[in-house]
Amino acid sequence: MASEHEAMWRELGLDLAAHDQLLQVLGDGYGQIFLSQQERPEGMEYFNFVMSEVHGLRIKELVDGKAEGKKVIGSFCVFVPEEIVVAADATLVGLCTGADFATELVDQVLPRNTCALIKSAFGFKLGKVCPYMESADMIVGENTCDGKKKSYETLGTLVPNLYVMDLPQVKSSEGRALLAAEYERFKQAVEELTGKEITAERLAHGIQVVNAKREALHRLYKLRAADPAPISGLDALLINQVSFYDDPVRFTQSVHKICDELEARIAAGQGVAPQGTPRLLFSGCPMAVPNWKLPWVVESSGAVVVGEESCVGERGTRNLTEPQGQDLASMMDAIVERYWKIDCAVFTPNPDRQEHVKQMAADYKAQGVIHYGLQFCQPYQMEALPLEKNLEAGGLPVLRVDTDYGMEDVEQLKTRVEAFLEMLA
Amino acid sequence: MASEHEAMWRELGLDLAAHDQLLQVLGDGYGQIFLSQQERPEGMEYFNFVMSEVHGLRIKELVDGKAEGKKVIGSFCVFVPEEIVVAADATLVGLCTGADFATELVDQVLPRNTCALIKSAFGFKLGKVCPYMESADMIVGENTCDGKKKSYETLGTLVPNLYVMDLPQVKSSEGRALLAAEYERFKQAVEELTGKEITAERLAHGIQVVNAKREALHRLYKLRAADPAPISGLDALLINQVSFYDDPVRFTQSVHKICDELEARIAAGQGVAPQGTPRLLFSGCPMAVPNWKLPWVVESSGAVVVGEESCVGERGTRNLTEPQGQDLASMMDAIVERYWKIDCAVFTPNPDRQEHVKQMAADYKAQGVIHYGLQFCQPYQMEALPLEKNLEAGGLPVLRVDTDYGMEDVEQLKTRVEAFLEMLA
Ligand code: SF4
Ligand code: SF4
Ligand code: SF4
Ligand code: SF4
Repeated sequence: MASEHEAMWRELGLDLAAHDQLLQVLGDGYGQIFLSQQERPEGMEYFNFVMSEVHGLRIKELVDGKAEGKKVIGSFCVFVPEEIVVAADATLVGLCTGADFATELVDQVLPRNTCALIKSAFGFKLGKVCPYMESADMIVGENTCDGKKKSYETLGTLVPNLYVMDLPQVKSSEGRALLAAEYERFKQAVEELTGKEITAERLAHGIQVVNAKREALHRLYKLRAADPAPISGLDALLINQVSFYDDPVRFTQSVHKICDELEARIAAGQGVAPQGTPRLLFSGCPMAVPNWKLPWVVESSGAVVVGEESCVGERGTRNLTEPQGQDLASMMDAIVERYWKIDCAVFTPNPDRQEHVKQMAADYKAQGVIHYGLQFCQPYQMEALPLEKNLEAGGLPVLRVDTDYGMEDVEQLKTRVEAFLEMLA
Repeated sequence: MASEHEAMWRELGLDLAAHDQLLQVLGDGYGQIFLSQQERPEGMEYFNFVMSEVHGLRIKELVDGKAEGKKVIGSFCVFVPEEIVVAADATLVGLCTGADFATELVDQVLPRNTCALIKSAFGFKLGKVCPYMESADMIVGENTCDGKKKSYETLGTLVPNLYVMDLPQVKSSEGRALLAAEYERFKQAVEELTGKEITAERLAHGIQVVNAKREALHRLYKLRAADPAPISGLDALLINQVSFYDDPVRFTQSVHKICDELEARIAAGQGVAPQGTPRLLFSGCPMAVPNWKLPWVVESSGAVVVGEESCVGERGTRNLTEPQGQDLASMMDAIVERYWKIDCAVFTPNPDRQEHVKQMAADYKAQGVIHYGLQFCQPYQMEALPLEKNLEAGGLPVLRVDTDYGMEDVEQLKTRVEAFLEMLA
């Protein structure tokens, strides 16, 4: 597959043959899963385009920006505060990858019992197929789960620019102080990397840009409460996924545009599936691009997904950053306060997550919850059992799925999802 | 199996039938693995006795003590400072259990991908067979690995008295401050539980008792450097295991007694295996009672184990608590300083562990290292790969074993160990 971007990819150090192969698989999967959907909103055209140019035009933008001194920072976790990155006129891109690659190479450096998400990050690095990772001036790791925390020690030997952010495990006053100290340290590191001082004015701008993106997504989420659902879960997930690497301002506009269209649909009683279609909520591990397996299985089984309690979803975007004052300290404090509320399963205890799942199920009128756990993800798999008990005690049925990025279990998943839907009927 | 202790066990709430079954398996295993050894030191008689009375006389001591107001505190990790417990005239017992039990019940509350050690703790609780757990007035959990951290949320619903200690993930100044704050909080909790104020005098006593225990073990470790080895790895491991629940003062005396005997053996050129027997070092996850599988496989394959880089071994006992002054603050600070040095794989990075393994291999003249990882233990399995590379680059061969408490892989382990020994020859 010859491409106008080949020279750029070569310069970034990609393995062109392997990369062609990846793009092929990605394109085929996208066509099969997304383009085949019925009654898609027209506004998805933009996201089709973004996906088709995810390694092309978007990378060119980043590379062109780098030529003008605009830095690129890669991240694996929604605890990395984008406000600070935007304030320094840099770009934050999500690296949480959602496909197996170069598995033989990965098996040489990671234990078999490692979650697919971490393996994928290493596979993209070792296989030299991720232009985001290769163009990043700094990659931020964070001490969340054991798998990420410990694998960063090895990742640090594979990439030249790994920065590790420490995170607390408990939401105590010491824990909050650690988060605040770490965000301060991160701010300094970003200033050093970019050569730009993060002034109050610049940080206010960063906060405004990132809040606007969140508000657009909040608007989208709310519209999914309508029955018939105006947008598929697959497309809504895709929009969430694109939020991790698109230009934030352009992304925000595109989301509002599609929301305008969805509002018109709702007014016209139009949707992607008939009224009364079973409505499900996802809860659990993040689904990073191009991890579309489970929503695809679910929606091709006759249900519609109406929400994602996930970091690629509402866990990642819930709450705005709302400073009490316009000085730097107030703004930094508001950033800490906002991220402090994230109900990731790496915290113990983590009671808010249970409440959020219930609230989302009520808000979006979901009849059941699919708990999505990645194999070997101890934090989410451990939370799944008590969460399931709690939700079912409240009358909300739960299907607990543990899976990875392989396709071997698709038929089995389909059977289980169908049985779950029958039970809901 | 009728026993004079039956009434006590019933009162503690044990399931007598299941408990009998456990004792039977334990006794059989002990006979087969320990009593069959050649040239055992006579001093092991004491440990045979302790083992035979592990659920009997020792529990009676604890129960009698409780009647007089002496509290029992259970722990799963060597980060729980025994000095503080002893200072309040309470008893610390290790609950880290080393056998599968009630696995069907465990599977209902824990994910399949949970390490055997955690599953074992739950199995002993759910199966009602652990008199230590049942007699504990307080059980201390700690936020170390994801598996323990998250499973304590469920354990807290099964036991009435779980206290969770937070731990840092990075050895930064914030991390040290957290440890200090958590030890201070623990001290208060112990004071509250026992109704005894921990004065400087009492804490000095606690430090003295625990240091003495460590010094006895240090003496034992050093004697294992002799060739022929004066004591088997199995017996040395057993002594380490007993250190977690025996009375510390009596234990210390018994260790010194066996050390006297070992010194005489060494002077006489006597050992448990001929001079020149291949010498191996264990490194990795803790081996809790009655987890004797791997040392048994290794020593019945014609090698001798000369050291354990493990929390049931030198990682747990390295360094004394050495206060700069005799006031409470100096002593608490010395405790923090001593535990702060523990090179557990839950920290990132954890470079000291690599140095300690090398140092121990040199000190004890080990020709190879067996890395012992429990299945699903991400911290140790993640460290194993770079550790192996590092050691082998330095000329020290490594056999990486990942296993659990099942007996299915014994033959396969034997084959791998034999091949490793042949390679060393
Ligand atoms: S699930 Fe937790 S560790 Fe993963 S991206 Fe979200 S906040 Fe970060
Ligand atoms: S899915 Fe779970 S194990 Fe994997 S990176 Fe996220 S928190 Fe860690
Ligand atoms: S290996 Fe780590 S978590 Fe386990 S007992 Fe030792 S210090 Fe505690
Ligand atoms: S062996 Fe590993 S996974 Fe198991 S409790 Fe210890 S540190 Fe945690």
